Amino acid sequence: MSNYKLTIAYDGSRYAGWQRQNVRSPVSAGISRKLSTIQGTLERALQKILQEKVILHGSGRTDAGVHAVCQAATFKTQRVVAPGRIKVALNGILPADIAVLDVQDVSCDFHARFSAASKTYRYVIYNEETRSPFLRSLALWVRRPLDVALMRKEARCLIGRHDFKSFQASDRRYRPSMTTVKRVAVAQGRGWAGLPFLENKRFVFIDMEAEGFLRNMVRNIVGTLVEIGRGRIKKGELKRILKAKDRRRAGPCAPAQGLYLVDVLYG
Amino acid sequence: MSNYKLTIAYDGSRYAGWQRQNVRSPVSAGISRKLSTIQGTLERALQKILQEKVILHGSGRTDAGVHAVCQAATFKTQRVVAPGRIKVALNGILPADIAVLDVQDVSCDFHARFSAASKTYRYVIYNEETRSPFLRSLALWVRRPLDVALMRKEARCLIGRHDFKSFQASDRRYRPSMTTVKRVAVAQGRGWAGLPFLENKRFVFIDMEAEGFLRNMVRNIVGTLVEIGRGRIKKGELKRILKAKDRRRAGPCAPAQGLYLVDVLYG
Repeated sequence: MSNYKLTIAYDGSRYAGWQRQNVRSPVSAGISRKLSTIQGTLERALQKILQEKVILHGSGRTDAGVHAVCQAATFKTQRVVAPGRIKVALNGILPADIAVLDVQDVSCDFHARFSAASKTYRYVIYNEETRSPFLRSLALWVRRPLDVALMRKEARCLIGRHDFKSFQASDRRYRPSMTTVKRVAVAQGRGWAGLPFLENKRFVFIDMEAEGFLRNMVRNIVGTLVEIGRGRIKKGELKRILKAKDRRRAGPCAPAQGLYLVDVLYG
Repeated sequence: MSNYKLTIAYDGSRYAGWQRQNVRSPVSAGISRKLSTIQGTLERALQKILQEKVILHGSGRTDAGVHAVCQAATFKTQRVVAPGRIKVALNGILPADIAVLDVQDVSCDFHARFSAASKTYRYVIYNEETRSPFLRSLALWVRRPLDVALMRKEARCLIGRHDFKSFQASDRRYRPSMTTVKRVAVAQGRGWAGLPFLENKRFVFIDMEAEGFLRNMVRNIVGTLVEIGRGRIKKGELKRILKAKDRRRAGPCAPAQGLYLVDVLYG
């Protein structure tokens, strides 16, 4: 039995998220077309190559529309194939919006999810007066200039072990809501001259590293920080929102298209 | 009569190019659906806003799939509307892949095409071993590392006034093929850390400024330079290809998705 680790990049725009879904699409109501997912697409590609049933475990789920530049995933197989050949074969049949960057042979007890020590997400905000035709599915457009210094100062209270219930998806199901945030960074950047549509444009980045993330946690925090940066939630309020453990106190959930899974660390 | 100048950015992926086309789409054979073009889309939007027939003149045509970050275009109208209001109104009804960056009141003899002194195009090459899921419609992927120093040295011979027939689209129609290239630059860059999928990635950029461009000229030159960078066309050969005035001597036409109109200069 071999255990392989994949490092995967994907543009999440076209997908219903990472996790394979066997439910019917609400859009195609009644028609039993399965939703297209990253996990499902990769599993089908692996099965084609290895000619056996494959279960692929990701480091975590990403929501519909969320991107990844280094999602980690592991699968076990009876076959012995050189990692380099798996990479070439997968990239040969995967759709253009998913790419396998690396394949490694790992020890049998390594598991993409359970072995992960921390994950890092980056949220990208395009902070210009006019929308960008090129970034519609790659960043959140915020028209008004954001007060980045204030956002940075406010965000500090998120670091450490807390109950993040105020920033957890507000469905009725009970889920644990304690986790440890290791790092939060709010930064500003002027776009790169390499890609012409980025040149000199104003961007704001929000990075979060945590041991684990609750559902919609980054997007709910980003939505709240944007309200702070626009002056619609007052200074000092983020700490109170966190303590309230009440989703209704926080800002809106920021849309998926600005969010990237950028790093998965293993101990 | 007022004369307005628009500065426009667009992601050309979804369009059959700049120029309005009244011919039928070859895809929808027989069905009289007009091809979607940038000019046509903008004219329809302007007509809706101004409630009169509008002809929009671009600084030049861009081909299907080619992008622009600052296309210039002018139109005349009987109405008197504040430029800022035209901008807001246009962006309100244009599709998300076209944005109006600026609207200016200009003198009546100013014409986006005839007044232009030079235009600059940039071609973006993603030069990494594995394709990028994010750049499929925004750059050309070249897997093998390119010899950028050689490309740069070879490209020098293009500067100046020449007959560029070897790099002109090879249809049967006669078109003038003399033009003056003011600047050619071949540069290498490491991607920007702001957008996570660019970080540390290898890019090659080819910039060309000219008084005028022949049809497919930049793409044919880029296709030839890529062959040089990969070692498939020999050192010194570009000069001979230019002198031959024969399209068959040059390399293939590089695909549209890497090409950006980045600047239009007026005297």
